[in-house]
Amino acid sequence: MDVLGLIGIASIFTAGITIAIGSIGPALGEGLAVSQALHSIAQQPDEANTITRTLFVGLAMVESSAIYCFVVSMILLFANPFWNYFINKALEAGTGKLKR
Amino acid sequence: MDVLGLIGIASIFTAGITIAIGSIGPALGEGLAVSQALHSIAQQPDEANTITRTLFVGLAMVESSAIYCFVVSMILLFANPFWNYFINKALEAGTGKLKR
Amino acid sequence: MDVLGLIGIASIFTAGITIAIGSIGPALGEGLAVSQALHSIAQQPDEANTITRTLFVGLAMVESSAIYCFVVSMILLFANPFWNYFINKALEAGTGKLKR
Amino acid sequence: MDVLGLIGIASIFTAGITIAIGSIGPALGEGLAVSQALHSIAQQPDEANTITRTLFVGLAMVESSAIYCFVVSMILLFANPFWNYFINKALEAGTGKLKR
Amino acid sequence: MDVLGLIGIASIFTAGITIAIGSIGPALGEGLAVSQALHSIAQQPDEANTITRTLFVGLAMVESSAIYCFVVSMILLFANPFWNYFINKALEAGTGKLKR
Amino acid sequence: MDVLGLIGIASIFTAGITIAIGSIGPALGEGLAVSQALHSIAQQPDEANTITRTLFVGLAMVESSAIYCFVVSMILLFANPFWNYFINKALEAGTGKLKR
Amino acid sequence: MDVLGLIGIASIFTAGITIAIGSIGPALGEGLAVSQALHSIAQQPDEANTITRTLFVGLAMVESSAIYCFVVSMILLFANPFWNYFINKALEAGTGKLKR
Amino acid sequence: MDVLGLIGIASIFTAGITIAIGSIGPALGEGLAVSQALHSIAQQPDEANTITRTLFVGLAMVESSAIYCFVVSMILLFANPFWNYFINKALEAGTGKLKR
Amino acid sequence: MDVLGLIGIASIFTAGITIAIGSIGPALGEGLAVSQALHSIAQQPDEANTITRTLFVGLAMVESSAIYCFVVSMILLFANPFWNYFINKALEAGTGKLKR
Amino acid sequence: MDVLGLIGIASIFTAGITIAIGSIGPALGEGLAVSQALHSIAQQPDEANTITRTLFVGLAMVESSAIYCFVVSMILLFANPFWNYFINKALEAGTGKLKR
Amino acid sequence: MDVLGLIGIASIFTAGITIAIGSIGPALGEGLAVSQALHSIAQQPDEANTITRTLFVGLAMVESSAIYCFVVSMILLFANPFWNYFINKALEAGTGKLKR
Amino acid sequence: MDVLGLIGIASIFTAGITIAIGSIGPALGEGLAVSQALHSIAQQPDEANTITRTLFVGLAMVESSAIYCFVVSMILLFANPFWNYFINKALEAGTGKLKR
Amino acid sequence: MDVLGLIGIASIFTAGITIAIGSIGPALGEGLAVSQALHSIAQQPDEANTITRTLFVGLAMVESSAIYCFVVSMILLFANPFWNYFINKALEAGTGKLKR
Amino acid sequence: MDVLGLIGIASIFTAGITIAIGSIGPALGEGLAVSQALHSIAQQPDEANTITRTLFVGLAMVESSAIYCFVVSMILLFANPFWNYFINKALEAGTGKLKR
Repeated sequence: MDVLGLIGIASIFTAGITIAIGSIGPALGEGLAVSQALHSIAQQPDEANTITRTLFVGLAMVESSAIYCFVVSMILLFANPFWNYFINKALEAGTGKLKR
Repeated sequence: MDVLGLIGIASIFTAGITIAIGSIGPALGEGLAVSQALHSIAQQPDEANTITRTLFVGLAMVESSAIYCFVVSMILLFANPFWNYFINKALEAGTGKLKR
Repeated sequence: MDVLGLIGIASIFTAGITIAIGSIGPALGEGLAVSQALHSIAQQPDEANTITRTLFVGLAMVESSAIYCFVVSMILLFANPFWNYFINKALEAGTGKLKR
Repeated sequence: MDVLGLIGIASIFTAGITIAIGSIGPALGEGLAVSQALHSIAQQPDEANTITRTLFVGLAMVESSAIYCFVVSMILLFANPFWNYFINKALEAGTGKLKR
Repeated sequence: MDVLGLIGIASIFTAGITIAIGSIGPALGEGLAVSQALHSIAQQPDEANTITRTLFVGLAMVESSAIYCFVVSMILLFANPFWNYFINKALEAGTGKLKR
Repeated sequence: MDVLGLIGIASIFTAGITIAIGSIGPALGEGLAVSQALHSIAQQPDEANTITRTLFVGLAMVESSAIYCFVVSMILLFANPFWNYFINKALEAGTGKLKR
Repeated sequence: MDVLGLIGIASIFTAGITIAIGSIGPALGEGLAVSQALHSIAQQPDEANTITRTLFVGLAMVESSAIYCFVVSMILLFANPFWNYFINKALEAGTGKLKR
Repeated sequence: MDVLGLIGIASIFTAGITIAIGSIGPALGEGLAVSQALHSIAQQPDEANTITRTLFVGLAMVESSAIYCFVVSMILLFANPFWNYFINKALEAGTGKLKR
Repeated sequence: MDVLGLIGIASIFTAGITIAIGSIGPALGEGLAVSQALHSIAQQPDEANTITRTLFVGLAMVESSAIYCFVVSMILLFANPFWNYFINKALEAGTGKLKR
Repeated sequence: MDVLGLIGIASIFTAGITIAIGSIGPALGEGLAVSQALHSIAQQPDEANTITRTLFVGLAMVESSAIYCFVVSMILLFANPFWNYFINKALEAGTGKLKR
Repeated sequence: MDVLGLIGIASIFTAGITIAIGSIGPALGEGLAVSQALHSIAQQPDEANTITRTLFVGLAMVESSAIYCFVVSMILLFANPFWNYFINKALEAGTGKLKR
Repeated sequence: MDVLGLIGIASIFTAGITIAIGSIGPALGEGLAVSQALHSIAQQPDEANTITRTLFVGLAMVESSAIYCFVVSMILLFANPFWNYFINKALEAGTGKLKR
Repeated sequence: MDVLGLIGIASIFTAGITIAIGSIGPALGEGLAVSQALHSIAQQPDEANTITRTLFVGLAMVESSAIYCFVVSMILLFANPFWNYFINKALEAGTGKLKR
Repeated sequence: MDVLGLIGIASIFTAGITIAIGSIGPALGEGLAVSQALHSIAQQPDEANTITRTLFVGLAMVESSAIYCFVVSMILLFANPFWNYFINKALEAGTGKLKR
């Protein structure tokens, strides 16, 4: 099998596993933060505005980890520099010399 | 076996495992958040509106992790750029030259 | 063994493992939410309606993760795009050329 | 060994492991919910009806995850589309050409 | 080794591992539920009937997961469709052609 | 090595591992239930009869999981349908043709 | 190496691992039950008899899981049906034909 | 390498791993029980006799799991039935025919 | 396959797994910190400013771990020194001598 | 490599791993018991004698698990029956026939 | 493949995995510390200065672990002594003798 | 590679892993005991002597597990009976016959 | 590939994994200690000096574990005795005889 | 590859992994002890001297586990008896006979 296929398989598998593992931590962390926010609102309704604002800033920080993973996953699928290099080389070499 | 088959197998396996692992974190996180929301409503019924609204915003944030995984899983099944590349190359090369 | 068999085996294994792993998180998360709902109803019976309604919305959100997994599992079993591609190619090539 | 045997082995193993892993989450989640329901009834006997009804709706939601796994397991054993395809092909090819 | 032996080995191993893994969740979940039931009876002896009844319904739900696993395990041992197919084919082919 | 030996090894290993893994859950679950029963008796000695009766019913439910595993383990050792099939076939084929 | 050796190795390894893994659950479960019994006696000394009696019945239930494992382990070492079969066959075949 | 060596290696490894894994559960369980006993004595010094007696009976039950493992480990080292069989066969066959 | 392909595959896989594993800790740690911040604001609303400021400094420290991982992941994808070395060597050697 | 070397390697590895794994449980269990003993002495200084005596009996029980592992480890290193058998056989066979 | 490639692959993989695993502990530890700092400020606002100063010193200590990992990761990527050795040897040997 | 090398490698690896794994349990157990001792001294300063004395006896018991591991580790490095046997045999056989 | 390359790869991988795994424990332990220090300062501000001083001594002890790992990691990268031995031997043997 | 290289690789890997794994337990245990010491000082400032002294003795005990690991790690790197044996043998045999 040529190198393009292996690069493709590695990219497919890594793209999936990256976002899959990368969603565990943020989801739990956000669940924890939201859960506590609701508890705090029930405890101190007058501070609901401050709590909600701090919650959203915090959620954005936590979500950033998930977004890093999503970005890497998307780069691997649609802007993979290694895939692009080999595609270009294959085009230059022409169809006749493709199989190395 | 040709490269198309291997790309297909990798895509099938990754699509499944991505959404499977990716559903653990969000499901637990949402369960945690919903659980606390119910506790808070019981504790402070007058704030049920604020709590429910904050809960839904929070759930949407947590759900986003699961949706990232679902999106990657769907891309791998139905809009797989690597699969498309090899399908196109196979079409160009014609049926007679398919087997490399 | 031809590529069809391998695609089939990968689809069978992935379909099963996807829904198996994917049911752990939602089941635990829903159990957590239901458990807290019952606690809240016992604590604040007057709010049973609000609690039950919020519970069902929350359960629907959590269940969505399990349903994503079930959908992917069903797609792999009954609407597998990779399997369909190879079935079609096999039909085109005719029975005589099936074995590659 | 022919492809039919491998499909069979994969189906047997996956059918078993699917329901085995898939029963962990629901069983724990239901145990949690039932456990809390009993606690709530003891705490607030007057609400036993509401609690029991909510419990059964919740248990049905949690059980649905186990049922998804059981359905996939049964499909793999008795309505396996990949097995059916190869059985049909084997019948068409006739007994004399079975061994590929 | 012929395919019958491999199918047999896979069935033996899967039948055992299915019920082994599948008994962890239900046993823990039932232990949790029974444990809480006893606590609730001690706390509210007058509701012992309601608690016991709800406990038994809940245990039946949890036990259902274990029974799914037991059913699949028994099917694999005594009503295995894949084993039956190959036994029938071996009988048809006759003893002389058994070894493939 | 002939198929009988492999079936035997698989049966030995599976029989052991089935009851080994299958004893973890029930033992912990029963320990939990017994532990809580003792706590409840100490708390509410007048209800000792109800508690003990409910405990025994619960223990029987939990033990059933361990018994399923023990049954499968015994079937694999002493009433193994796959082993019996191959023993019968070996007897039919006669001693001279044993080695395949 | 002949089949007797492999059956022997599998039996040795499985006998050990069965009782090793199978002792984790019961030991923890019994520790839990004993621990709570002591707590209950300290809390309610007048009920020491009822507590001790219930404890011993419970310990017997938990111990049964460990005894299942011990029984399987002893069967594998001293009454192994698969080992016996091959020993008998080896005796029948006579010493001269032992090596297959 | 002859079969005696492999039986020996398997016995050595299994003997060690059996007592190693088998000591985790009992040690933790006994630690738990002793720990609670000390707590109970401090709480109710007048019941020290009852507590100590119940503790020792409980410890004996828990220790039995460790002793099962130790017994199996010793059997594997010093009264291994499989090793004895092959030693006897080797003696019968005489030194000249030892190497099979 | 040439060395460029292997370097590419290793870079793709490591880039994904680095950010995936590296997002678990920070996401949970930030969730913990945000969760406690909300609790503290609800408890002591007058100190909301100090709490929020300390929270943001702390989040920045925790986020730094995730950023280290993201930086390494980006270096591996877009500024990989090993990839660059081999690309340069391949260019120097010319296309004709590429395959070593 | 001759069988003596393999027996030696297996004994070395097993001796180490046995005491390594076997020290985890007892160390934690003893830590738990000592920890609670100190707590109890601080709570009830007048019972220090009873507590200390019960602690030492309990520690001896827990330590017995570690000593079983140490004994097996020492037997494997210095009184290994399998090693002795092969050493004796090697001596009997004489140096000239050592290599089988 | 020459040794340079393998050194490169090992460096890429280790650099990623080092910072990925190395970020789990510090992130959780810092989250714990920040979380407690916020709790303490809310509890004792007058000591906010002392608390914040101690927090920052502590965070610096915890962060040092993450920085050790980042330093090793950067050394492996940009100042790898083993890579440099082989690059130099390759330069000395000249291009013609590169492939050993 | 001769048997001496393999014995050496096994001894090196086992010596390291034995003390590494064997230090986890004792370190945690001692940490637990010390931690509780400090708590008890703070709670009951008058009993500091009894507490400290009991702590040191307990620490010695826990440390014994770590010392068993260290002893085995040192035996494997500096008084390895298997290594000594092969060294002696190598000396007897003389340098010329070393390589078997 | 010559031995230098393998020593290099092993050193790279071990250097990374050592500091990565070795940073988990210290980071968590320090986080725990800092967290409790802040709690104690808030609880007893007058003792802030004693607390801070004890904290720093304790942190230094915990950090020592991380520093051991960092030292070993640096020795493996920059003062590796095994690497130095083989480099020296390679220099002595001269370039021409390098490849063994 | 000669035996020296393999001994070197095993020593490098074991030296790293020994101190890495061996630092987890002590670091957590010390963190636990320091954490409790700070709590106790805050609770009982008059006993700060006794607490600090007991803490340091305890930390020394816990640290001893880490030091055992560090000692083994250093022995493997700089005073490895197996490495020394083979180095000496290599020197005696002379450079010409090195390669066995």
